[in-house]
This record gives sequence, C-alpha cells and structure tokens, in this order.
Amino acid sequence: MKTGKAEIVCTGSELLSGKLNLYVPLFHELLAPLGFAITREQSCGDSLPDIKDCLAGSLRRADLVIACGGLGPTFDDLTRQAAAAVLGRRLFHSKSCEQILSFNYKLKALPPNIKDQCLLVEGAKPLENSNGTAFGQVLTRGRKMLVLLPGPRKEWEPMFHNFLDEEIRAFFKGRPPVAQLKLKIAGLWEPQAEKLLRPVMRRFPLAGFTILAGPGTVEFILSGDDSRGLIGRAGAACRKELGDKLYGEGEDTLAAAIGAKLKARGRTLSAAESCTGGLAAKLVTDIPGSSEYFLGGAITYSNAAKIKLLGVRGGTLEKAGAVSGECALEMAAGARKIFGSDYAFSVTGIAGPGGGTEEKPAGLVFFGLAGPRGTAVFKRQFRGTRPFIRECAANFILDELRKVIK
Amino acid sequence: MKTGKAEIVCTGSELLSGKLNLYVPLFHELLAPLGFAITREQSCGDSLPDIKDCLAGSLRRADLVIACGGLGPTFDDLTRQAAAAVLGRRLFHSKSCEQILSFNYKLKALPPNIKDQCLLVEGAKPLENSNGTAFGQVLTRGRKMLVLLPGPRKEWEPMFHNFLDEEIRAFFKGRPPVAQLKLKIAGLWEPQAEKLLRPVMRRFPLAGFTILAGPGTVEFILSGDDSRGLIGRAGAACRKELGDKLYGEGEDTLAAAIGAKLKARGRTLSAAESCTGGLAAKLVTDIPGSSEYFLGGAITYSNAAKIKLLGVRGGTLEKAGAVSGECALEMAAGARKIFGSDYAFSVTGIAGPGGGTEEKPAGLVFFGLAGPRGTAVFKRQFRGTRPFIRECAANFILDELRKVIK
Repeated sequence: MKTGKAEIVCTGSELLSGKLNLYVPLFHELLAPLGFAITREQSCGDSLPDIKDCLAGSLRRADLVIACGGLGPTFDDLTRQAAAAVLGRRLFHSKSCEQILSFNYKLKALPPNIKDQCLLVEGAKPLENSNGTAFGQVLTRGRKMLVLLPGPRKEWEPMFHNFLDEEIRAFFKGRPPVAQLKLKIAGLWEPQAEKLLRPVMRRFPLAGFTILAGPGTVEFILSGDDSRGLIGRAGAACRKELGDKLYGEGEDTLAAAIGAKLKARGRTLSAAESCTGGLAAKLVTDIPGSSEYFLGGAITYSNAAKIKLLGVRGGTLEKAGAVSGECALEMAAGARKIFGSDYAFSVTGIAGPGGGTEEKPAGLVFFGLAGPRGTAVFKRQFRGTRPFIRECAANFILDELRKVIK
Repeated sequence: MKTGKAEIVCTGSELLSGKLNLYVPLFHELLAPLGFAITREQSCGDSLPDIKDCLAGSLRRADLVIACGGLGPTFDDLTRQAAAAVLGRRLFHSKSCEQILSFNYKLKALPPNIKDQCLLVEGAKPLENSNGTAFGQVLTRGRKMLVLLPGPRKEWEPMFHNFLDEEIRAFFKGRPPVAQLKLKIAGLWEPQAEKLLRPVMRRFPLAGFTILAGPGTVEFILSGDDSRGLIGRAGAACRKELGDKLYGEGEDTLAAAIGAKLKARGRTLSAAESCTGGLAAKLVTDIPGSSEYFLGGAITYSNAAKIKLLGVRGGTLEKAGAVSGECALEMAAGARKIFGSDYAFSVTGIAGPGGGTEEKPAGLVFFGLAGPRGTAVFKRQFRGTRPFIRECAANFILDELRKVIK
C-alpha cells in the first residue's frame, strides 16, 4: 500500500495577521510514522465560509484531513459548524461529553459556553482533552477521515498521542510508515554539518534529507520508506561522521542528555549565570525530575551579586571585568562551592544589543566549567539578536558540560 | 474602498516535511499598510497539478495573489509553468531579462538552466533580483494581480521593497490601510476576557476581533478599516473595561511593562525561584537594558540552597515545607535582602508531572512579593503540563509585581 495523502487545515485569523504557524512540522512528524505525507496545508481566518471551503477542498483531495483550531468556547470558534455543513450532518449536544466535563470540573450544571463544547457532529467519535474543555472529533466518510482538533498545542498533542494515533492506525490499516530519523547535533553550524554529512547523503539516495538550523544546534532529518532498512544504515553512517557532536535523537534536548548522564552517575549540578539571566537553568529544569540532580543557580547580574553570592573577587572584576574568563572561572567555582554540587557552569557576556564596546562587543561571552577533575574556561563571539545570542550561549555551555560529565 | 483580499501560496515540499514557514507574518506586515488583509495561505509541494490548483483557487477568491517559491533553476521549480497554465498564457524567453543576467554575471552566453530563469509568462512585468538569478513576475488579469516571487527571503524581500510595493499601490489605487491593535491582558483566562469585552464587540462592528489564550495571559486583537477612527474608539472602550488587567499593547510583554515601571521610578528588582527554575528571571532579562534594574536571582531547587542563599529558616522548611506560603515569603524577603533590591519576588511550587501529593498536588504554587511597603503571599493551583504550569506561575508573579510597583 502506498503512502497516504494528508492535508492540514489551520483556522485562526491570528495565523494570517502576525502569528507564526508552528504546527505543520509537528504534524509531519506525527503523521510520517503512520504512513502519511502532508500534501497541502491551508490556513484561513475565523470565517465559516472560508473554513467550509478549506475543509471541502481537502476532503476532496486527501485521505486524511486534520483541522486544527476553532473548537473553543467563543464566538469565533466555528470549525464544528463548518465540518457539519461540509459533511451534510447535524450537530448535537453529547450527554456523555457533558458528563465528562461535569465530572472533571466538579460542576453540577455547565455554563452555556462550556456546554457548547459538547456539540458533536453526527457520527463523531469524541477525543477527550486532558488540558482543556474542547473535545476532539474523529469523523469518517467512506474511506476518508476528518479529524477536528483544538488549536492549543498542549491540548491537541496529548490527544494525538493518547487516542488519535491509534484511531488512524486502525482506520487506515497497513500503510508503510514513512520512516524518519532526527539527529540532534551541537557544536556545529548548519553549513559545517551539511559539509560533514554530504558524503552520506550521496551514498544513500533517500526520499528526503532536511537540515534545520537552531541557535548553536542543528537538526538533521532523514526520511523515506524504510522497508529495506535504508534509514537505519544511513543513520549509522551519520552517527559515525558526527561522533560526539551528536547529542541525541528525536525529541532529545541538551538538557535531557545532561540529566541522563548526571542521574546515571549520581552527580549534581549548579549554575551561575549573568547574561543568560536564568535561561540556562530554565533549560536544565525543563526536564521533569531535574530536582534529583540540579541543586540551584545564582543569577548574578550586578557585580555586587557576583561578589556576595558567588565569592567572585572584587579585584577580578576591577582588573579583568565581569565579562572575562577570570570572572567566568570564579563564578563557576563559586557556584560549585556554595551549592555543594559536583559540577557547576557559568556564563557571563554581553547579550546586546547595547552594552558592547570595541574591545568587548555585543555577543562576546565567557564560560566556566567546574567539576571533580578541575576547571575550564571558554570564550565565544556570537552574532545575532539578543535572544539568539542568549540561546547560543546557553546551548554552548550545556553542550560543553555534556561532554565533560564522566 | 474596502480592504483588499490577499492570498499567499507557498510552494516547496520542505514546508510540508519539517521546515517552518516563516513568511506569512512577514507578508502580513508588508501588505497591511497597502490595504490588504491575508484571507488564506496555502502551502503545497513541488508538483505542477498542486501548484496550479492552489493558484487557480486563490485567483478565484482573492484580489491579490502572491506565490512564493518554485522559480529556481532546478527540475522541481514549476511555479512559472503553473501560472502560465492557470492564466492560459504561453511562456517565452525574455531577451531583456537575458541581457540583464549576462551583464550582471559578466557572461557572454548563459548556461541553459540560467537561461530558463528568463522564462516569463506572457504579459508579465519582470522584477529584478538583487540577490539571485530568478526574476519576480507581476501578472494582471482584469482587476486581479498575481505575483510570482522567488522562495529565499533575501531574494524576495528586497524585490518587494524596491519594486512590488509600488506596483501594488499603483494597480490597486486608494485602498485604506488595515489597522490593527493588539491588547495584552494578564490576570484573566480567555473566557473571562471574552465576557468582559463582549459588550465592546457588540458596540463596534469591526472587520475582526481575535482572542488568543496564553499561559495566564490573553491577547485581544482588533483589526479593520480605520478610516473613521473605529479601531481607536473600540480600543479606548476595551481599555476602560480592562483597567489594570491591560499590561500593554502590540509586542509588549509583562517583563517589559515591569522594566518600564522600575526604570521610571529608579527601583531595582531581584528574584528567588524554585519550581520555575530560572524562567521568571529569564523573562525579566529578555528585555534589553534589564541590567539597569535587575540585580540578580537565586534559583534554589534544594532545601539547602534555600537556607544558605536566601536565609529561609530550617524550621519553616520542616514545619510548613518548601511549597508553602511561609517559605515563599522568606524566599522573597531573603532575595530582597541579599541582593539589596527594592523589590523581590519568589516562586515555589510543584511543576509536575511528578512530586505531587494529595495535599500538595502538581500545579500548586506559592508566591511571595517583598517591596518597600511590605510583603504579600499568593497561592494558586494551575492545571496542565509542566511547561504550562511553569509559564503560568512566572506570568502570574510578574503580573502581581507589575501591579504593586508604585
């Protein structure tokens, strides 16, 4: 059986007036293993005729149509109505959905706008929402499936994993998965990664290679029909080229890689941040269970805080300045001491856009690492906007930390 | 004259297999001042029937259609062919385009694939490319305009500013610009905000109201023809309803609002975070120039760090626990003291998914504020994923801080 055709319909006027649509790559990743390639995406405003037109077109062309957004409780949520009209079916209040909401929210009577969240298109299978009140809906007509999902990612993503994945597999039996392998790379910029991996791309004529640049990180995605193990072999060849530049696969993050290493070795970590202002610690504590190994951090923006909290010497700040290797080193050593952790890292630099000088321009960042085997200092010059420089800096030191944990 | 309808067609299989489409918000910003609202966006792969279908649909519905991508020199660049087929016109090699490329690249004879870059649709006005070989093309039929632009931003963006902007103004004379006002709200959930603003929406029948939910924040967007000052008046009515729930407009953030207040008053700030792990300080330091008022923060994940860095009493941790109002208060007071700041906030709670108990479930968060006029403690129960709970918590305390700064 061939790869199925899927189309995505995103509704929401905000998507046409300034807000970035982040969902198409996410749906691609979820649908590829189920044997579907996305053949078209449409975004339209919160207008009933527009949503109807998009849904009708997609249903004509594709096997699977996913409509995202427009299931909320407000006036501009119209996807249910559009789907009912396109399929020529009526809407009804589902008693069982109402019972679920009453139970979950401990309400005897549902307010009218919440009650309307229980409107289902005739024949719909509702999908429970673990992070909101809107139900997803699975609708089928002949050999086609139309799925209505709520707009917020935190609502539709668990819904997809918990229910929809299985629904799609069961309805569209036996499609070969479009295999995908996402390699997560740090310490290389996009052109460097591409140059390194070009020989592998030449050796394995796959359906698709995609390379995506992040702040100090790169994702390299291999995809195609894997019935002859092609993706696996190409992945192995990439791993060989990448060596320790590869920090993970799929949804792995640098912070997760660090967490796994620290946990496995029973080691602890602390942080000392200046220009990243908490971002690096935020990334570390994004990981559930990070309290097992992360003891804490000091965000020392002012010189006084660097001295008082971390024991940086006044003389160091005077002579070398706060943005210096000396200061970075004392910050890391100070954090390791005050928190009593096995490892500590530090970041001090100029995130910009202001605050730079000819000698120390915006984007100049010093880093320190302190661990059981000693200390290290790094210096990097990043170029870009303030948020980009901060993310590059946080990712850089997390990657160096990852490589140093033994 | 009314607001014009524009549609965007993006071609490129990569947009459907992992690559983020960053262009729609950019086109929105370029087209709004010209009097056009984007009413639909479509992305399709590099397939001639698909591109034709997208273009034909868009030309049927919209006044202005912008097709981006598929003008390159390789086999999968098919937008020229699709446009010619949809308009029922032939393609021809433009001698003047060939001369321009020969001159720019100092070539006597153009290689065949570059020569094909000079293929124009009959009747097209070519747009010169200052960063590549593909010409843009402006096509008109009746009162409609179809524009073909190359895919890379560095090629199409100068083309838009240098030529296309003027072409569109000249062809579609006298359209009023589309005005937009984005109100940023905190301390209300989406349904509460909608309820509060519903009377305003009824009084001002505008082109568009959009409401967007964030983690503890809401965006309310008014848009439409502002020739009679409608947006301004509706905005004023919204401001009146919202009172101090309104923290800003446009791209304002809670952290920017806090920064502006602190700077105006010459006050300083510090932070003490447990479950947000640096996120709140990261938000504060997202703001350029935040080093003027933000002295630093302590991320105290472990009890030992709470005691050592912030002076939380061992007895408090024993009796009330780390997740308590008492601990939050001592954390805020401790941060204010150690950093010597005018204001300090604290966050301590259970971000989840693990770590909760029946008495103190995941999502329970305590907050402290310490300032020149005294202290305050807050308690909130959030529901959702770990990142959502952390963002709600950070936004909650930043909003309370914003309201308290005098």
